[in-house]
Amino acid sequence: MSEPTLDVAGLGNALVDVLSFEDDDFVVRHELLRGAAMMVDMERSEAVYADMGPTIETSGGSAANTIAGLASFGSRTGFIGRVHDDELGRAFQHDLQSLGVRFTARPTTDGAPTGRCLVIVAPDAERTLCTYLGCAAELGNDDLDLSLVSDAAITYVEGYLWDQPPAMEAIRRALTAARDADRMVAMTLSDPFCVDRHRDDFRELLDDQIDVLFANEEEIRSLFEVATFDEALQAVRGRCDIAVLTRGASGSVIVTNGDVHVVDAVPVDDLVDTTGAGDLFAAGFLHGLARGDSLPLCGELGSLAAAEAISHLGPRPMVSLADLSATRLS
Amino acid sequence: MSEPTLDVAGLGNALVDVLSFEDDDFVVRHELLRGAAMMVDMERSEAVYADMGPTIETSGGSAANTIAGLASFGSRTGFIGRVHDDELGRAFQHDLQSLGVRFTARPTTDGAPTGRCLVIVAPDAERTLCTYLGCAAELGNDDLDLSLVSDAAITYVEGYLWDQPPAMEAIRRALTAARDADRMVAMTLSDPFCVDRHRDDFRELLDDQIDVLFANEEEIRSLFEVATFDEALQAVRGRCDIAVLTRGASGSVIVTNGDVHVVDAVPVDDLVDTTGAGDLFAAGFLHGLARGDSLPLCGELGSLAAAEAISHLGPRPMVSLADLSATRLS
Repeated sequence: MSEPTLDVAGLGNALVDVLSFEDDDFVVRHELLRGAAMMVDMERSEAVYADMGPTIETSGGSAANTIAGLASFGSRTGFIGRVHDDELGRAFQHDLQSLGVRFTARPTTDGAPTGRCLVIVAPDAERTLCTYLGCAAELGNDDLDLSLVSDAAITYVEGYLWDQPPAMEAIRRALTAARDADRMVAMTLSDPFCVDRHRDDFRELLDDQIDVLFANEEEIRSLFEVATFDEALQAVRGRCDIAVLTRGASGSVIVTNGDVHVVDAVPVDDLVDTTGAGDLFAAGFLHGLARGDSLPLCGELGSLAAAEAISHLGPRPMVSLADLSATRLS
Repeated sequence: MSEPTLDVAGLGNALVDVLSFEDDDFVVRHELLRGAAMMVDMERSEAVYADMGPTIETSGGSAANTIAGLASFGSRTGFIGRVHDDELGRAFQHDLQSLGVRFTARPTTDGAPTGRCLVIVAPDAERTLCTYLGCAAELGNDDLDLSLVSDAAITYVEGYLWDQPPAMEAIRRALTAARDADRMVAMTLSDPFCVDRHRDDFRELLDDQIDVLFANEEEIRSLFEVATFDEALQAVRGRCDIAVLTRGASGSVIVTNGDVHVVDAVPVDDLVDTTGAGDLFAAGFLHGLARGDSLPLCGELGSLAAAEAISHLGPRPMVSLADLSATRLS
């Protein structure tokens, strides 16, 4: 096969995040799941928004955040996702393209608007997500630029995509294109409730298609329906080439057939908003992996990027991760 | 006259801020005025935006920021401004209404979109503004809910409004309504170049209509075309009841016919973005003034609110200013 011209291509929901700080009773009042992601329709999204305090808007979407982080590190990246031709869609597109991400999808001009994710940030910085997918739910073959996948050393997909039955054919085609081009496939499990909805599919994917798996503690325990982190670690071993298990402030564990590495988190002075922590961990890790770093160094890059993301409001880096890693890991 | 049911009514440009961090050469390359505000057309706004890195969007507008700050302090507030029925306009409206601000304008459904202000934040936290006014430039009598003005103890207007000839009649009607209801009128000079464009009008206003004037050092020197801060101080004395002159990290000076008070700035550990500093100083000051605090305490409230605004990205408070002032000034 030809040399990849991209490091990572991402496939995910194109979402604009709408963030506000709220007390814990907000989450209870709106029957959301604290710390988790809930999919809602437009009407419910509007009702929650109407009750939120002043918000800020910033591009989001799990895999898109990872791709933005990779671009900030200096990786060559592309993104596949569906936006509408509206203000949120144009902002989403601008934010990726301004980082040099190849994002070639034509915005839709009819149907649902660009999706948005209401992000409720609690006083302890935990975030709760309330997502209206909008046109992202209609991701189809028309949105799929398969050249991005075949050009990329690694194709990265988010588990949230499995919540959209219309998207399944497009996802399968992308994964097949990556396989056919002899590239790697990486995936994040996204959310413990998402795992609960698609456990059988995710297990099958893990055995057949996934080279690199990202999951936090709750997600990996949910995948194997086990009670402890260590049981999950033993269960995932050998099921894919590399499993990257994140544990928040307790750091991460990288599991391969032969080795297990334990990597510390980077301490954060002022924890503001955990949105994007996992997405940016994946960005740092994949940046290292694509350039051939050792697995522990990949983990350190992940810790560094996650620490940057949680020290401010919003899921994407606010400084150049290339500069930050040059300063901090030199 | 009847007791006011509002503390402050604001009249200003309804704008959504679009912020990014850029190196200093960005401002040079786009021929903007570092630290100042430039009015541009849609085309130029789009060209600057296309060159900006990833942005975050947050409601802005000078007087609107002040009103948001006042609401965060617990003042009873209203706002008059013009938004379009688009995503930015709805976000602007949501953000004020969610704070309890009376904002009753009907969004326009034809004509220009909601205005936006591109905010270029430099490495030293100085901000440069590039404003496309959109439908805000068409503020007219239809947008004017005069009951807000007559209900409010203080009506607050921004100098930027004078850049819009169509708005002049609406502004004059609002100021007359405030006078007729025997209320106070406060004004900010907004920007040194804005003062340069409207010096004669602003001097006449100061003598005839303005009770409380807000200006930073550059603005008040521009108004009186003098070289030093002290000359400006002497020149403004006696021209209005209260002149509030802000000097960034050097604090502020409050000038009345009889007294001069010098108030310290509140030190900031981590200066991020100076956007909103003056707007939030005015919010703190007016909050104190409306409830009858001493002028030095009004100044301290201003310093506290300005310090909060410049310690994060975006012009509006991210914490409750009522809580902050209760903790810090008790």
